[in-house]
Amino acid sequence: MLTHYPVVNKNGDTITSAVTNLDLHDIARVGKTYGIGSFFVVTPLTDQKALVEKIVDHWTKGAGGVYNPKRRQALELIRICDTLADVADSLEKSYGVAPKFVATTARKQKATISFETFKPFLNDGSPYVLILGTAWGLTENVLKNADYVLAPIAGPGSYNHLPVRAAAAIMLDRLMGDIKS
Amino acid sequence: MLTHYPVVNKNGDTITSAVTNLDLHDIARVGKTYGIGSFFVVTPLTDQKALVEKIVDHWTKGAGGVYNPKRRQALELIRICDTLADVADSLEKSYGVAPKFVATTARKQKATISFETFKPFLNDGSPYVLILGTAWGLTENVLKNADYVLAPIAGPGSYNHLPVRAAAAIMLDRLMGDIKS
Repeated sequence: MLTHYPVVNKNGDTITSAVTNLDLHDIARVGKTYGIGSFFVVTPLTDQKALVEKIVDHWTKGAGGVYNPKRRQALELIRICDTLADVADSLEKSYGVAPKFVATTARKQKATISFETFKPFLNDGSPYVLILGTAWGLTENVLKNADYVLAPIAGPGSYNHLPVRAAAAIMLDRLMGDIKS
Repeated sequence: MLTHYPVVNKNGDTITSAVTNLDLHDIARVGKTYGIGSFFVVTPLTDQKALVEKIVDHWTKGAGGVYNPKRRQALELIRICDTLADVADSLEKSYGVAPKFVATTARKQKATISFETFKPFLNDGSPYVLILGTAWGLTENVLKNADYVLAPIAGPGSYNHLPVRAAAAIMLDRLMGDIKS
């Protein structure tokens, strides 16, 4: 799930960020590669929801899907929701069980879990939702209320400014990819 | 290294692809995160080289670098070269030893090496160049002449249409990231 609200800006204020066309394409293609069930795009803004719908329709029902069927298969994963609570409701209706929320952050946090430790939990039968924040990341409140917070992705140095698209790719590969194959 | 020539198009013909602004930003930011030495952008076309130079200058010497110093640090990694041979020459001059070329592909190949098997080779003291192709990927000739060809990144299904930006992120994380941290 990619959320545009609630996220923080540079100064730590809670904001609603704008949808980025390329985030939708890239994360949908990565999600399709790793076999995720749905890619939820969360924004409460009417015009932003309409924008996402227009992009998805172009590639799933319009000329885009005819031109590029592979793109259609990826963008078909997108579901639009107003809030994280709506995502939870939608999944509970589909699966008959409440989903578990897994928050992600580039900021150091107290209680995070490593990808290696978390990976086997995915086989416990629950639907899991990986929450990615846009702008400067998820609010403290979202992190506090998640079932798990994954450890920040870090390289050897202190630079931690990955595009959310790249973070999504790395996370799905760590959780569902196979480095041995 | 991200190469725009020689790569293949949808029909398998060898072409020169156009530079994509976002590929430069995303791959530079991922490269900076994982501590790579340089990010070579390969294209023999004069106007495309000028475009890359303009983008890099904006973020490293111009207004962009003042506005966003983190972006400056990432884009400073970019070096522009005409050909793969020029990349080899440049690295041999810097390191005093010929680099090893590691090609990547989304197509199934006969002699590929898994990321897990290849990873320890990075500590043998040689400079290594990871070659990513744009468009429909590297030519057979580049694959044949590389020192290694990494196994395609695959999910559980048959869908294999990752953006090159996402592939770069996943590859650098597999080779230089730490899933245990």
